[in-house]
Amino acid sequence: MQKRMVYFVSDRTGITAETLGHSLLSQFSTISFQFHTFSFIDSIEKSEEFIQLISTSAQSEKHRPIIIASMVNSEIRNKIKQTSSFFIDIFETFLGSLEQELNTPSEKTVGQAHGILNTKEYNDRIEAVNFALAFDDGSKAEHYEQADLILVGVSRSGKTPTCLYLALQYGISAANYPFTPEDLDSVTLPNPLKKFKNKLIGLTIQPERLHQLRQARKPNSTYAELHQCQKEIKTLEAIYQTLHIPYLNSTSLSIEELSSKIIMLSGVHRKNW
Amino acid sequence: MQKRMVYFVSDRTGITAETLGHSLLSQFSTISFQFHTFSFIDSIEKSEEFIQLISTSAQSEKHRPIIIASMVNSEIRNKIKQTSSFFIDIFETFLGSLEQELNTPSEKTVGQAHGILNTKEYNDRIEAVNFALAFDDGSKAEHYEQADLILVGVSRSGKTPTCLYLALQYGISAANYPFTPEDLDSVTLPNPLKKFKNKLIGLTIQPERLHQLRQARKPNSTYAELHQCQKEIKTLEAIYQTLHIPYLNSTSLSIEELSSKIIMLSGVHRKNW
Repeated sequence: MQKRMVYFVSDRTGITAETLGHSLLSQFSTISFQFHTFSFIDSIEKSEEFIQLISTSAQSEKHRPIIIASMVNSEIRNKIKQTSSFFIDIFETFLGSLEQELNTPSEKTVGQAHGILNTKEYNDRIEAVNFALAFDDGSKAEHYEQADLILVGVSRSGKTPTCLYLALQYGISAANYPFTPEDLDSVTLPNPLKKFKNKLIGLTIQPERLHQLRQARKPNSTYAELHQCQKEIKTLEAIYQTLHIPYLNSTSLSIEELSSKIIMLSGVHRKNW
Repeated sequence: MQKRMVYFVSDRTGITAETLGHSLLSQFSTISFQFHTFSFIDSIEKSEEFIQLISTSAQSEKHRPIIIASMVNSEIRNKIKQTSSFFIDIFETFLGSLEQELNTPSEKTVGQAHGILNTKEYNDRIEAVNFALAFDDGSKAEHYEQADLILVGVSRSGKTPTCLYLALQYGISAANYPFTPEDLDSVTLPNPLKKFKNKLIGLTIQPERLHQLRQARKPNSTYAELHQCQKEIKTLEAIYQTLHIPYLNSTSLSIEELSSKIIMLSGVHRKNW
């Protein structure tokens, strides 16, 4: 198996370089990549240490290192580019043609993408995180009018991490409400949700997977029994279908995928820009 | 002010396209961008609706739309590319040269980057979120041996959202412990932290900013008084300095920046790949 060293390098957080690199390299599953991130390489001095490391890597490995960079500072970028490496830089690749298209020079300012560029937007995101925490697991149901959306589903179907992701990534205030076994005795909405039907997004999950997840939490409990999981999911899906609540199956979707589908389904406005 | 419509389009979540686009376009602060995301455009049929929209946008706006795409499917990509737009595609731009460098064809499989590609790694991330929630605000201090790191600081200095981000983005299990005013009566570590000095990362914050944040939470309380904030921060920084605890000032750093600096300072291993 081909083994390759990959270096993400940035004069800021490196999140853009990592995200792009991860997307691209995940298309080569037969190669064994070893990833390293170097953030805040924002001076010639810091870049020299990095360059030294690259040159050591280039000498000791069979293949030259891969560098995926997001360097706004072209002086530092050019120094790194001279190393023996396969070099991709995001700004260098795209900024020229964007400047032409926009007929405007780029500002070449570091820290624009993941810093606190827009205080209002940033505060909204932090507020959304506080919201998701305060409105977790059925809390504060009497204040659901404040929620952008309410994620519903049975215990362990992925509601909490998804609400947190919606908050952190998109600044969306998402509450979550767990259907208890009692809530699932009939095909109706629990009382706290009745007034907010238009804010609901449902999650469902394969009963076998739910059983696994609950076993890990409370082994051999009634709560975790496969039969119990099947019963809950059956009524749950009947509720979604009868009441026309849009819903997603979380069994094989990541929180990123769930979040992005939830935004599409609910039509809520993102606040991350 | 030049106004431009920007469309992120992907056959999956669109997170990579959004991240890249946001990084690039934040370098043009004099232009007013309007962003729209189209995720899961994974069939010719879905792409036709999108193309229709682009053509309407192209006709009604002064400037042609900007499309930032991450389309693994080249058939769909080529259809979108034919619209009247400024078109950037991440895969098209980089995959060719990467295939050459790696001497391996790419797999052109959708959903590799933000799906559940590696179940173990994905479960680690979800577990880290549960960890951050369970170990929030000084909880479960008796189990700190399980933490990758412990974020410390005074109330409202940004510990909780940062721990959640470390969990969601990097799969790092970060606990957080708030120094109470009593903890800050002397320049020593509170008891629960004494055995874990090597796991501590400190946060500090400008007293004026802390005062603002606390005023928003409990207006006109002793807790929020500027004098109280100054006193707490003074002892807090003395503790960090005397005991050689690495620390960061969160006043003007975003949670992304804090997280990425915390990883550098602590040297903890990320689990997101």
